[in-house]
Amino acid sequence: MSDARKDRPTSRRSFLAAAAGAGALATTGRAQAQGQKPDPLITEPQDWNRFLGPGVDAAPYGKPSRFEAGVVRRHVGWLTADTISSINFTPLHQLDGIVTPNGLCFERHHAGVPEIEPGKHRLMVHGLVEKPLVFTMDDLKRFPGRVNKLYFLECAANGGMEWRGAQLNGCQFTHGMIHNVWYTGVPLKTLLDEAGMRTNGKWLLAEGADASLMTRSIPIEKAMKDCLVVWAMNGEALRPEQGYPLRLVVPGWEGNMWIKWLRRLEIGDQPWQQREETSKYTDLLADGRSRRFTFVMDAKSVVTNPSPQAPLRQKGPNVLTGLAWSGRGAITRVDVSIDGGRNWRNARIDGPVLPMSLTRFYVDFDWQGEDMLIQSRAMDETGYVQPTKDELRKVRGVNSIYHNNGIQTWHVKPNGETENVEIL
Amino acid sequence: MSDARKDRPTSRRSFLAAAAGAGALATTGRAQAQGQKPDPLITEPQDWNRFLGPGVDAAPYGKPSRFEAGVVRRHVGWLTADTISSINFTPLHQLDGIVTPNGLCFERHHAGVPEIEPGKHRLMVHGLVEKPLVFTMDDLKRFPGRVNKLYFLECAANGGMEWRGAQLNGCQFTHGMIHNVWYTGVPLKTLLDEAGMRTNGKWLLAEGADASLMTRSIPIEKAMKDCLVVWAMNGEALRPEQGYPLRLVVPGWEGNMWIKWLRRLEIGDQPWQQREETSKYTDLLADGRSRRFTFVMDAKSVVTNPSPQAPLRQKGPNVLTGLAWSGRGAITRVDVSIDGGRNWRNARIDGPVLPMSLTRFYVDFDWQGEDMLIQSRAMDETGYVQPTKDELRKVRGVNSIYHNNGIQTWHVKPNGETENVEIL
Repeated sequence: MSDARKDRPTSRRSFLAAAAGAGALATTGRAQAQGQKPDPLITEPQDWNRFLGPGVDAAPYGKPSRFEAGVVRRHVGWLTADTISSINFTPLHQLDGIVTPNGLCFERHHAGVPEIEPGKHRLMVHGLVEKPLVFTMDDLKRFPGRVNKLYFLECAANGGMEWRGAQLNGCQFTHGMIHNVWYTGVPLKTLLDEAGMRTNGKWLLAEGADASLMTRSIPIEKAMKDCLVVWAMNGEALRPEQGYPLRLVVPGWEGNMWIKWLRRLEIGDQPWQQREETSKYTDLLADGRSRRFTFVMDAKSVVTNPSPQAPLRQKGPNVLTGLAWSGRGAITRVDVSIDGGRNWRNARIDGPVLPMSLTRFYVDFDWQGEDMLIQSRAMDETGYVQPTKDELRKVRGVNSIYHNNGIQTWHVKPNGETENVEIL
Repeated sequence: MSDARKDRPTSRRSFLAAAAGAGALATTGRAQAQGQKPDPLITEPQDWNRFLGPGVDAAPYGKPSRFEAGVVRRHVGWLTADTISSINFTPLHQLDGIVTPNGLCFERHHAGVPEIEPGKHRLMVHGLVEKPLVFTMDDLKRFPGRVNKLYFLECAANGGMEWRGAQLNGCQFTHGMIHNVWYTGVPLKTLLDEAGMRTNGKWLLAEGADASLMTRSIPIEKAMKDCLVVWAMNGEALRPEQGYPLRLVVPGWEGNMWIKWLRRLEIGDQPWQQREETSKYTDLLADGRSRRFTFVMDAKSVVTNPSPQAPLRQKGPNVLTGLAWSGRGAITRVDVSIDGGRNWRNARIDGPVLPMSLTRFYVDFDWQGEDMLIQSRAMDETGYVQPTKDELRKVRGVNSIYHNNGIQTWHVKPNGETENVEIL
């Protein structure tokens, strides 16, 4: 939609004025007017006030309300040649806060989800080390130095379909190859120290135990700096689709390096040039050359509400919210525009701001049915500012699939419906 | 077990020495010895290396591995006259980090779990206010000032069976009426401000929509300070058993004040003296008098591993871990003893330390099969130090069920089995 610019909203003043102070907003609650018929949902007993419900043995492991059945991971038919080696997406527009529930973390597999018996799982550490080692899961859980860290994991291809223009109508699909969970495990450094790395050890190969035997080369500096070997997410065992019983955590770097079902760590003196770092996960430029080993995920953000799957439903006070993140550290600022990037205002960042973690932002605003072109723009502690998609395309062309961190635009129409558009 | 003192371990030196530096610990991994038969779990292909697994449409809302089927909430038969008005317990010994997965948050109901249709749920604010208001769920989600906060919720009766001595053999049962989740909602203050509280408003009554019509009186200072009205936990909608679609959050105060299925907030000039704050949730002292309105949960801690349900299985390096919390603010320090409280050492606190949130601690140690009497002791930012159970009993007697925050002792035997004991 290249003519979106024509529809620029003219009433940005109300947005900016409302933002000046929440006290200025009208209430969302409704007062009972004199003579008005009382709401029977208040005055009449409902079934749930009258009858006993299920007790404490009904669900030893609980699940969501049946009224939340639509809050699920989804895949996109035309992107899914087969479901075994494919992708589904986190429903970002249906979530809040910064932690993704385990059951809703997006999936990307290369050979489906293996069902590994944890008692039979082994992690081998070998190559350029003094003492090759084998760990059972119990060995790892007895290892000193256990830590818990909250990190985002983003697929390098998140937003990849948008390089050539607005295509997928919903932040679940444009930005949903990301999740943010607490990991429990031990620093990779302590395992490598235990094995005793040789001085010519410069690269680490990590290998998964699924039928794709997924492998990636990781520079040893990163391995020693902040990588983790983890067995739990959000307090409980890893989910099967997230690498049960063991996965590698590579904070801030592209998701496919976070090897799931981790079974082998080999130390070498150069990268291995495996399939998944050459034919894939290499960024083709306009002139036919490639950017390779593009590990870090640059600063990015998206407005999750309103968005195509979560339109505005009522005039008056509304809450705009979204997520920002950076693989280079902490988010320091998020700006929001409703006029396609002409004017920006600072969003309110909520909750703890942790490095390489999703960060939640809000803007309370008053909407009177005006057209809006909503954008968000993240800044991180290195001073990096999230670029527009066009700025990215000028440098990288449109051949690539990976590392699209351009600014997203949602067009909110007078009826509240919202669409993925681009301002060209 | 009043003679536990006789079994005091004599080898505390090894515990303290090991703690001096993790580098001093032996590895938990195993080197492959010369001539040893290789581990077939390394050398032979396993099924999960060879066959494709289920794909991305297998589980739109994911669930744990079938090998984790034992990680569940449990209730105690002899405590459970009926399961509708009863309790189950969070499996603290099977979790790590500080956030409790939604499916494992303990339950306490007075009339079972109601199934409320969110579109038909209403929240009424009335009493000593200028403008009585009714909110739908959509109204609340459009309200300005939305926040996300991580808070523990502890039942006042957590540990209640232990007033008269060690009874329940596992931290799931002695301490598992607690969970710690991220809440999304709006400050209660903003709703009350919107309604316009009258100057004679001193107390708030909160009422639930289940068949028990649970009600509690809350001082207005607390309501205005930090209470929240929330609709999401850990990023997704509240679970039915945790108040779907709406609950009150009363940070640091006893769990039954956090009214679930919240439907009514009334402002008054004195407490209502409802059933659940008089016949229950009032602490009977030895002389027959009662402590009432004992709202705040004092500082407390427990070692979750090792514990009776999670014994030590191997000599050598081991990880001791546990949780500490205080309703009065942030935890500043946790000490651990392995000789029943004679000697103490500082535990390592991991992760963000947030006020009125669970806090995770670790001690890495080397175990050579010695008897241990393990204890932990929490301190909070007010300077309060968790007392022994005997110190509590001297002041409060043993008639009470509520507010037992005494130091817990686990007896680890030479075979690693672990038992709930008391040092008298």
